[in-house]
Amino acid sequence: MTQRSYAIVGTGAIGGYYGACLQRAGFPVHFLVHRDYEQVRDRGLRIDSVYGDFQLPHVHAYTDPQLMPPCDVVVIALKSTHNHLLAEILPPLVQPQTTLVLLQNGLGCEGAIAAQFPDNPLIGGLCFICSNKVGPGHIRHLDYQSITLAQYASDYAPCGITPELSAIASDFQAAQIEITTHGNLFQSRWQKLVWNIPYNSLSVILDATTQELMANAMTRQLVQDLMHEVQQGAAACACEITDDFVAKMLVHTEQMTPYLTSMKLDYDHGRPLEHDAIVGNPLKFAQRQGVELPKIALLYQQLQFLDARSRHISAPNSPN
Amino acid sequence: MTQRSYAIVGTGAIGGYYGACLQRAGFPVHFLVHRDYEQVRDRGLRIDSVYGDFQLPHVHAYTDPQLMPPCDVVVIALKSTHNHLLAEILPPLVQPQTTLVLLQNGLGCEGAIAAQFPDNPLIGGLCFICSNKVGPGHIRHLDYQSITLAQYASDYAPCGITPELSAIASDFQAAQIEITTHGNLFQSRWQKLVWNIPYNSLSVILDATTQELMANAMTRQLVQDLMHEVQQGAAACACEITDDFVAKMLVHTEQMTPYLTSMKLDYDHGRPLEHDAIVGNPLKFAQRQGVELPKIALLYQQLQFLDARSRHISAPNSPN
Repeated sequence: MTQRSYAIVGTGAIGGYYGACLQRAGFPVHFLVHRDYEQVRDRGLRIDSVYGDFQLPHVHAYTDPQLMPPCDVVVIALKSTHNHLLAEILPPLVQPQTTLVLLQNGLGCEGAIAAQFPDNPLIGGLCFICSNKVGPGHIRHLDYQSITLAQYASDYAPCGITPELSAIASDFQAAQIEITTHGNLFQSRWQKLVWNIPYNSLSVILDATTQELMANAMTRQLVQDLMHEVQQGAAACACEITDDFVAKMLVHTEQMTPYLTSMKLDYDHGRPLEHDAIVGNPLKFAQRQGVELPKIALLYQQLQFLDARSRHISAPNSPN
Repeated sequence: MTQRSYAIVGTGAIGGYYGACLQRAGFPVHFLVHRDYEQVRDRGLRIDSVYGDFQLPHVHAYTDPQLMPPCDVVVIALKSTHNHLLAEILPPLVQPQTTLVLLQNGLGCEGAIAAQFPDNPLIGGLCFICSNKVGPGHIRHLDYQSITLAQYASDYAPCGITPELSAIASDFQAAQIEITTHGNLFQSRWQKLVWNIPYNSLSVILDATTQELMANAMTRQLVQDLMHEVQQGAAACACEITDDFVAKMLVHTEQMTPYLTSMKLDYDHGRPLEHDAIVGNPLKFAQRQGVELPKIALLYQQLQFLDARSRHISAPNSPN
């Protein structure tokens, strides 16, 4: 049986790492590279990993999606702040049978992709990984690497474990990536927001590590308050998050080494914040069900201010 | 008629300015000075003011309240974060007929003073002034200088315009200080919080001037949301704040020159934040009436984190 071919859209800390794992396992992989193109074309990818360093001296690198071959699977690993580029990037890569895999945090990013390719399977992925790009084509993988995969259907209707989902899961597992499959993407995404909303937001707003936030009784309480609001938002969307899950997240984070969240790293590097996918969209999904999340709404306002200022963006004319 | 004698407790941007005005007008004034004692004793006070510079080469300066004479009026102009010192400072200054005047922002600071001196008139003052201490005994007065004065009674029961209140107002007016008297201190304090809670808190949390907060649509909306929560808190305490008042505050702040709030100045200088008087106590007053103010509660948690970190205070064991 021929192995499925993969296109990796966005060869950064996420796409670069997982794409390299797939290529190492023998899958044909085509990398869309933006800034590091020449380096990656000439010298491939280097992965320094807690699970064992490896290098891929030769990879298929492209700057122009028009020059890439159509693939069996397209893995989207851009930051969600760049999703507006997908309308142009994806068409050359997607065939009638292509499966799309969206490796992004947050909520609500599948809708536009599904609208563009209504007949292709679309799988959402939530990565539990600590990795950074430390140089051109050079990724440092510090901890974890599991992905939760679940299939998307319109309005996040649960899909169960489909054959397409199992096929992708099986490829990733063959590439030594730890995979959990889930029948309800909406539930998986809400669940990850329990961690992402408080820690990403507060780490930026208060310029703090997870450890600092947990060591102070006030912010520890605030983190917990915010997690409860995420629970309320999830419940409004018919996704149950148990108190036990929230308690585990708190304990787990206290036991972690101090951690700078992805949003904090973006902020410190002057990159746009994923505040819409991670904070604004969950708010909107809850609001559509008539549920307000006032504390999360406040964080969203604060984040938008900080994001705009850090990138010298003029103020939008009206709140949304 | 002999003029009333004044003790000024706290010779900083507020106490130094108003005390100097009183002395200039001929009142006997005794200044309790902490850090700048020698300078003030030897060279007096210097006021650079938009309303006209003046100097007082000789003032009565003290570091020890035990050495001060009892006075007809004791003006407390410490930061509220130092109010725990009052139990020791005040007794030598206060006679049976002494009127106490508390020039502080926020809510709930009169209770402890009234408990200590239940038979003395206690007047609360809200200063609308932009002044800074720029050196030892040297105050720069940049804009405004009016004070709203209102008498305190247990649980902020309205007192009307009492003879004691009128007497103090008349002295201050003789010292060319613009005075408004008010029959309901609770109302006056809640009203000032409409401005103080959003701008003081957000200027610290987001490291921003009032102008930046108003120029961004998100934070402008957040300021407005917070003002509405203050209205709700006030309403719970039977104090009505009109929408018109809120609207005026917004417009007024937009027209002001960019302004660093007093809490931001304290934060930037590593001084303790007045987050209890300005944010925590209003929350508690509302809670006692069964009203939660979730956005203000969140700001209070954020401020406590930032305050503790900036002063390297270990975390309290439990939230309050």
